[in-house]
Parts: sequence; structure tokens; C-alpha cells
Amino acid sequence: MDFIVFLIQSPDQTGLVSGISSFFYERNFNIVDCQQFVDVYSKKFFMRLKLDLSGLKTSRKQLESEFQDFSAPKQLNWSVHYTDQLQKMAILVTTAPHCLYDLLVRHEQKELLCEIPVIISNRPNLESIAEKFRIPFYCLPISNKADKPRQEKLVQSLLKQHHIDLVVLARYMQILSTEFTEGYFGKIINIHHAFLPAFQGANPYRRAYERGVKMIGATAHYATPDLDEGPIIEQNVERVTHEHYPQELTQIGADVERVVLATAVKAHLERRIIITGNKTLVFS
Amino acid sequence: MDFIVFLIQSPDQTGLVSGISSFFYERNFNIVDCQQFVDVYSKKFFMRLKLDLSGLKTSRKQLESEFQDFSAPKQLNWSVHYTDQLQKMAILVTTAPHCLYDLLVRHEQKELLCEIPVIISNRPNLESIAEKFRIPFYCLPISNKADKPRQEKLVQSLLKQHHIDLVVLARYMQILSTEFTEGYFGKIINIHHAFLPAFQGANPYRRAYERGVKMIGATAHYATPDLDEGPIIEQNVERVTHEHYPQELTQIGADVERVVLATAVKAHLERRIIITGNKTLVFS
Amino acid sequence: MDFIVFLIQSPDQTGLVSGISSFFYERNFNIVDCQQFVDVYSKKFFMRLKLDLSGLKTSRKQLESEFQDFSAPKQLNWSVHYTDQLQKMAILVTTAPHCLYDLLVRHEQKELLCEIPVIISNRPNLESIAEKFRIPFYCLPISNKADKPRQEKLVQSLLKQHHIDLVVLARYMQILSTEFTEGYFGKIINIHHAFLPAFQGANPYRRAYERGVKMIGATAHYATPDLDEGPIIEQNVERVTHEHYPQELTQIGADVERVVLATAVKAHLERRIIITGNKTLVFS
Amino acid sequence: MDFIVFLIQSPDQTGLVSGISSFFYERNFNIVDCQQFVDVYSKKFFMRLKLDLSGLKTSRKQLESEFQDFSAPKQLNWSVHYTDQLQKMAILVTTAPHCLYDLLVRHEQKELLCEIPVIISNRPNLESIAEKFRIPFYCLPISNKADKPRQEKLVQSLLKQHHIDLVVLARYMQILSTEFTEGYFGKIINIHHAFLPAFQGANPYRRAYERGVKMIGATAHYATPDLDEGPIIEQNVERVTHEHYPQELTQIGADVERVVLATAVKAHLERRIIITGNKTLVFS
Repeated sequence: MDFIVFLIQSPDQTGLVSGISSFFYERNFNIVDCQQFVDVYSKKFFMRLKLDLSGLKTSRKQLESEFQDFSAPKQLNWSVHYTDQLQKMAILVTTAPHCLYDLLVRHEQKELLCEIPVIISNRPNLESIAEKFRIPFYCLPISNKADKPRQEKLVQSLLKQHHIDLVVLARYMQILSTEFTEGYFGKIINIHHAFLPAFQGANPYRRAYERGVKMIGATAHYATPDLDEGPIIEQNVERVTHEHYPQELTQIGADVERVVLATAVKAHLERRIIITGNKTLVFS
Repeated sequence: MDFIVFLIQSPDQTGLVSGISSFFYERNFNIVDCQQFVDVYSKKFFMRLKLDLSGLKTSRKQLESEFQDFSAPKQLNWSVHYTDQLQKMAILVTTAPHCLYDLLVRHEQKELLCEIPVIISNRPNLESIAEKFRIPFYCLPISNKADKPRQEKLVQSLLKQHHIDLVVLARYMQILSTEFTEGYFGKIINIHHAFLPAFQGANPYRRAYERGVKMIGATAHYATPDLDEGPIIEQNVERVTHEHYPQELTQIGADVERVVLATAVKAHLERRIIITGNKTLVFS
Repeated sequence: MDFIVFLIQSPDQTGLVSGISSFFYERNFNIVDCQQFVDVYSKKFFMRLKLDLSGLKTSRKQLESEFQDFSAPKQLNWSVHYTDQLQKMAILVTTAPHCLYDLLVRHEQKELLCEIPVIISNRPNLESIAEKFRIPFYCLPISNKADKPRQEKLVQSLLKQHHIDLVVLARYMQILSTEFTEGYFGKIINIHHAFLPAFQGANPYRRAYERGVKMIGATAHYATPDLDEGPIIEQNVERVTHEHYPQELTQIGADVERVVLATAVKAHLERRIIITGNKTLVFS
Repeated sequence: MDFIVFLIQSPDQTGLVSGISSFFYERNFNIVDCQQFVDVYSKKFFMRLKLDLSGLKTSRKQLESEFQDFSAPKQLNWSVHYTDQLQKMAILVTTAPHCLYDLLVRHEQKELLCEIPVIISNRPNLESIAEKFRIPFYCLPISNKADKPRQEKLVQSLLKQHHIDLVVLARYMQILSTEFTEGYFGKIINIHHAFLPAFQGANPYRRAYERGVKMIGATAHYATPDLDEGPIIEQNVERVTHEHYPQELTQIGADVERVVLATAVKAHLERRIIITGNKTLVFS
């Protein structure tokens, strides 16, 4: 069964729920799910609408054009998605295998509905995992700092060539350029191995150990030019004690990371996320 | 600021969101919040609608009568609530003080918006707590098994006399009669000190200890004639180890119980719960 | 770095810590870790002792014989393990791939230190996963109920042939015979996809859905002749809502199952578990 | 039943477990509980030893003097505590009632075994709560910044006058002077309403809201001259969504705060904490 998903945000105003739902009712759509939220602080309205795709009697272009006419006077900021078009997801990695494995297994089990045309790395280590799942692996090494822009260009041209919709940084240990993150705004999900905003930057488990925290965490967020400052999608934590050394924190943290990253990627693929300012709304 | 809350359930049918939201839009109501859910298994539609009460231009009777006319052909099963009418809540206890204290503190801090006209117990132990918060305490002891119906009658007449809307069994260690639970269906919340359906009945912590479980829990549910079988509202658990004896499980469990019970009572008072069959929908 | 691990249980008596630690101190062992617990109810003493293996100056036989002489008058029930001898673990599966994948990935990442000589199934479905990790896969189907004992014999002879120390039932959907579970007592770990003792037996997610629980869980336990009644090693839960259908509970539960099973298997491989009666002590 | 608790830390060396346990065995003590931990990084040894007090045949002075003789050559840093001497705990508050209520209820229920001779505040708001539990309440206001040192002197003289062993800052919204925190090192427990090191300083819930985090937390730690930088004792978190405004985060957070603070205070009162550097070991 396939669906049409509308994601809408706009200044709050009376009659939005009634107006939007009537728009689709008049066109004989079956509203499978409708979630809305009004932020009383920013006075903004948000809605996620899920329609039975089989109810579409016109072309997609026609529907979009009619909704555009409807939405313009209301200043709706909206996007539409059709679940019969699988998104294309690229995974970028360095040497840590746990998140890569997790995404590939969930993909194979149809928990993450998307295509994965490429896995890209700046190191050769994880090629055999890509092999196992028969996905092309590109090793694009960086010989020195001056070499970084050249390599990033190669990454970007691979993404373009494969029409990538979503880039997942599955423990990719390179900082992306401002131009890259801005060009893919809202389309790059990063996993940071700490409970942001605690322990931004490098070596979070080591620093968590030194600070003596009693829980460690992980955060999935959209990448922005400011490192580890982008809109947070999902977070979780696990309890630790004084008996855990940094290498054990790393292992305990890996379990948190992979579930947090998979949860965020799934929400994105299912079009359940709206970005507003530097925050996200994640619908259920 | 006060609100009108509509809770609606009905057989699923197209046009419900559009129809209901238009009903209120035509009457110039501001929809503050609207949550809906369609259960594809039972083919039932559920909605919670929160309106700004200040938008009410007619009498409440008038609004209800118009909504009744609107809803009848659609077979909507609905109720309406006005937040300017505080609900009256009775607390029933025996000897365990933690849930009683918790409810009274949250009530004093205006986290639970309701009136508490009476605390009723079959034992005298907790009178001093009721005293601290200046709430009438009725001790209605049970001398023997044959005496139970007489005491329950007294409890019920106290509830009626005080126009009680919600009865909270805050570790009340007496089984209520079928007549009582049926008469107050959906109006009695019980806290069971186990993760239902595990350890129904008596002494759950002792039995959890004997079974060697690694987590203990608590469950808040609506009381029904079948003991510990009513619709579950909220559950939670806490991790335990082999080092915890039954008395420690009791203490750890107490923290779970009071948060679970308070969460359930709050959801009920805020009219966020719809009962369907033997289950609940709890809106956020 | 390798270790000797002693697991000890006995009737409680004064001088045990002093006596045991002195035994090893006199032999110039470095006690890397020492955990003990006295159960005041059963009056039993438990200890896990971890020694630096490089401190062993005699043969292993000699050490064990001397400790036997020391322990006999104190009625110590003990076992000793050397971490330079990798345990051999067999994985039994049917059709669900998530736990199998998880164990194989953790094994590859050296999080689970053991050998995995065989994967055995009553169905052919998961062969390709075994292939990916280059581990022999045996499909031993059961044609009908009468055929079960024959197949179980084949399973057991495979286990014997490969000198298996630990059998992991990673969603193996066959009930083992009493003779099998008794013969491998304390050596078979099963994952049950519910929070035991809730929902023992078949279809726990479906039943959890029908009961309307607000959390679902998983339990890893040692297999015994009584189905789902064996000593619990590890449990965990995840929050769910009325919006989750059985197939979603299954998916959410899969994440709980694999972490719970891996945690239990790791504790067993690291010799951190003592079974006492129908319970476990799991040392940290 | 009463106990003697020894807390010991020292440079790691062979024979410590054997030596210490033999010291007490020779004096016919029953070791009720013994936990030890060797930090392989800092090469430090830690032990908590719990003895049955009724086994003490000499004076306490005598025991301590003998243990001092024993420990000196081993460079043991130790302290001893007798559970028949109730500690005296002062609670400092400002206007938030939830932690104060929680501590007083747990104290009344004998979950926190201590005396509470005084509650001190810089504001009059919470006097009625102290009244309910019949504990002296001192309101020591601060008229302006210059007035702060004078008020702190009054606080300190109250603490001295009442022989206070432990100061609990239960949402006391004043920064203590370096002289105060150093004078009471390891004897002041503060609750910070954020998951440290995230959101140190003022208004953590507001800042958590603005950052769009998906979980909020609380941290109990020993107070040091560096604000919110002291050794962490306990932390916990609760999940939140985009639907929660700052005032709701405050309410959700309050539940986390009070359990985290109570857990830390309980561990301190039961002498289960050893401070090492800027970290804590919390024994179970």
C-alpha cells in the first residue's frame, strides 16, 4: 500500500485544519493519518498528512499545482512525497563498523525502505562489509589536509551521479565543508557519540570518562556548517558506572549509537520530520 | 486560559477530520490542538479536539445540542469537557503512604488540577498525612469479611455525597465489588505494583524476587470487575539485581508506582484518555 | 592479557573472604577483581574472583587440586575458567534474522570472545547470513511432529562433534526435550520475546497488543524443561503506544531482543554468571 | 542491626584483599559485604567493607588505632563510620518545593536514615512545608549582592551550631563561596537540573528547549568552588518531544531531579561513595 505525505508549516491562523482537510476531502482522498501541532511561542502551525495514494485521480503535477494555488494565500511552506518512489541513501563511513552493519541489516530486513547505491569511505577498512551486502564501496582517501577539498569534490560528484536524496554519516570522521552541508541542508544525518550539547567535538567517550558521568549517550542530528550544532533528531543514553573504562564506554555507546542513528534515518525516510529553525518536529 | 475538550470515537469513514474541524471552524472556534488516530484493525476513528473556551458564543447546552445533531448520522460516540469545571477526586488508601503523599504534593503544586474533597481509608494509619494537607480523612474500617459490603456502601455514599468524578486507588488493599467497579466504569484508577500482566494479584514484589526478574514495574489501569485486568493507562519499570531483597524491591518499586500513578491521573484529569474495548488511547 | 576466573558458592560462614583471598595471595596471584555477595535469606555465599593468569606458576591441574583440598571442608561449590581457552558457541535459529546478525557482528568485532563452529536451523531461510560470515550452516528440517526426536538427536550429535560449550537459541522456534535441556543445564541461553513472566509461550507480541500494554520487553534465560521458566539472566523493555500494531511491536521488540540476548551471552562467556536455584547472579 | 563501614583507597598493591580481610577475620568480625575495585589506569585500589557492629569487642578508638597501625605502611587512605550514629543533614532551599518535599517524605518513611535539624532558605516561601514536618525553618534573606557574605556566615554558623554532617542544596539558588565549598568538601550535595556537562549554569530547561534536545536530565554532584563542575554522584534523563514547552520541561524535569537527588543523598548517608579526583565511585 502506498501513500502521499504532505509536510506543512506556516504562520498559525484559524481554519487551517478545516481548510486543509476539506481540500483533500473534496478530492475524495482518504486521510490515513493527520498530525498537527501549533507552537504557541513562535505562533507557527505544523502538519503531517498521510493520504492513500490510490485515491489520486489526477496527475501528481496537477495535485501539486492545485495545492499550490490553495496554499499560497495562507503562506504554507510545504513539501509532498510519494512512498512509491524509493529514496536513495548514501552511507559515509571511516573505520567504525557498527553503524554501517546496523543500517545494512535493517535495510536488508526492509525496516529501512530505501535504495543504497553507494558506500563511501576515506579509509579501506570496511570494504568487506559492503561486499557482504553486495553494495558498491568507494574508498576516497585523503592524503593530507590540503587534499581534503579535492576528496570532498569526489564525494559530492558520486552523490550527484547516484541522485542521492539522503547522506548518512555513519561515524564518518571528516568535517564537511560549509558549502557541502549548506548544499545538502536537511539531507545529511550525522551520529555524534555523545549526548549533545555535552561533549561536542572529538573523543567524547574519553572526555565522558574523565568527567565521571554516570550515563553516556548518542545524538543523531542534521549536519550544518557548525559542527555538532545542527537540529537534533533523536537522542538516547545508557547507564554506566565507575567500573567502565573508555574502551567499555565505547562498546556500550556503540549500542546506543546504532539504535539512535537507525531511529533518525527511519523517521527521515518515512517523512516524519519537519525542520523549524534549529529544531526538529518528529511525528510519531 | 480555559479550554473545551471533545473526545470522539466512531466507525472510520471518510470526511471525519474535514467534517468535524469544519463544524468548529464555522462556529469561529480556535482549534488549539487536534489529535486523531485510525485503528486499521478495528476500523475505528478516534479524535481529541481542544478548543479555546473563550470562543464559545452560545450556551454550552446549545453547543452540545448542535454537535449532537451533527454527530448522530455519523455514529460518533463523544463526550465534552470544560476545563473551568474542576473535577472532584477521591483518594482511597490503606497503609502505604508514598502514593498518597505524591498525589497531595502534586495537587498542592497545581500539577494535578482538581479538587480533593475526601481521603478514605480502611485503616487509621495515614490520617496525619491528610491532616498536613488539611483534607478530610474518613476511616471506614472493615471488621471481618462479612462486613465488607457494609463498608463499601459507606464508601460509595461518601463518593456520591461529594460528587466525586474520579476515584484513585492509591494502594487501597481491598477488592471492590463488581457493582462498584461497573457503576464507576472509567472513573476508578488503580495502581498495581507490578508490570502487568506479570504478577497479577497479591505480593507482586515477593513473587518478583522469587522469580529472579531483573526489572520490576508498576501499572496504572482502570478498575474493572476482573482484578488487575482493566484497561492499562501507564506502565514503567526499574532495573534491579540479585542484590535487592523484597523490602528493597518494595522501596525501588515505590518510586516507580508514584510516577506511574501520577502520570495516569494527570492524563485522566486532562481528558487525554479514550477507553476502547479493554485498552486505552493516551494522547500526548 | 589472560585471566583465571573462579566462580564459588557455598553456605555462608565467617572467614571465607579472608581464607580464599589468602589462598591466592600465598601463591603470589594478583587478584584483578573480586566480587562477593551474601544472600542473608538463603544464607549462601557467592564469589567471583579474577586472577592474572600469568601469575600461575604450577600446572592448572595442580592449582585445581590444591584449591579442591582447600575448599572441601568449607563445602565450596566452585568452577574455574581460563580465558585463553575460547569457548565454542553454537547458534540455533529458525527464520528471524535479527538476533543471528547481531551475534555474528559482535563476534566479528571481538565483542563476544568465542568460536562459532556451527549455525543450526530447522529451516533453510538464514543460510545466506551464515555464508556472509563464512560459518558452516546446517539445515535440519522437521517434517512432522513424530520427526522431532530424530532431528533433535542430529542437533545434539552436531553439538557434541563440535565440542560446543554454549548453545544460543536465537529465536529457535522449537521446544527442546527435557533430556536435551537437562543434559545442557546452564549451557543453553534462550531469548524470549516478552518481559517474563508476562506472556510466556507463543505469540507474545500479538498478546501484548491485545492486552494493550504500554511497554514491551524481552528476556534472556537459561533453558530448562519448563518452557520460559528457567533462570532469568537479563531483561529490558521499550515504551510503546496505542499507535503501534503487532508488526511494529515485533520490530521495536527486535531491537530489545538483540541487545538483551547479546548482554546475556557476553555475561556467560565472561563467566560473570552464577546460577543458584532458579535465579542468577550476574556480576558486573 | 547496626554496622561498621570502612571506606578505603590506596595505591594498588598485591595482598590488599587478603590483608584487610584477615585483619578483620582475626578480630572475629563478620564481613557482611565487601566490594573492591582496582582502577587499572590510575593504579588505585578502592574498597568498601561492611562489618556487623555487634562483633566489636574493643572500644571504637582501639579498633581505629589498630587499623591505623595496620594501614600506615600500606598508605591506605581510609575512613570509618558506625551506623548507630545518625548523621545530621541540613537542607538548603529557595522557592522550588519538589526536592524538599521529596527528601522530607523519604525521611519520614525511614528511607533516608538521618536527622534533619534545620531547613535554611534565602526566601520565606517554603516555610509551610517545613511546618508540616515539624522541622525548624530559618529564613536568611539576602538584601543585595554586597549582603551575600554576611548571609553565608549566618548559614555556616547555623550548620556548625547543629553539628551538620551533610548539606543538601535542594534547588538552593545561591552560589556558595569557595571558602564554604572547600570547608565542606565532600559534604555538600547539589542537584543541577540538567544532564551535566550539558547546560551548566542558569536556566538549563530554557536552554534545553532552545537547543531542541530530545531528553532532559538532572545531575547530583558534590559542590566544589567551580560551579557545576564537582564530582558527579548520580544522573538520569527523561524523554521529551517538540510538544513540550519550557514550563513542561520544568515539570517533567522535577520528577527526574527529586529521584536523582534522593538516590545521591541515600548513597552518601549509607557511606557507599568514595571520591577520587573529580569522580566518584558509588558502590551498590
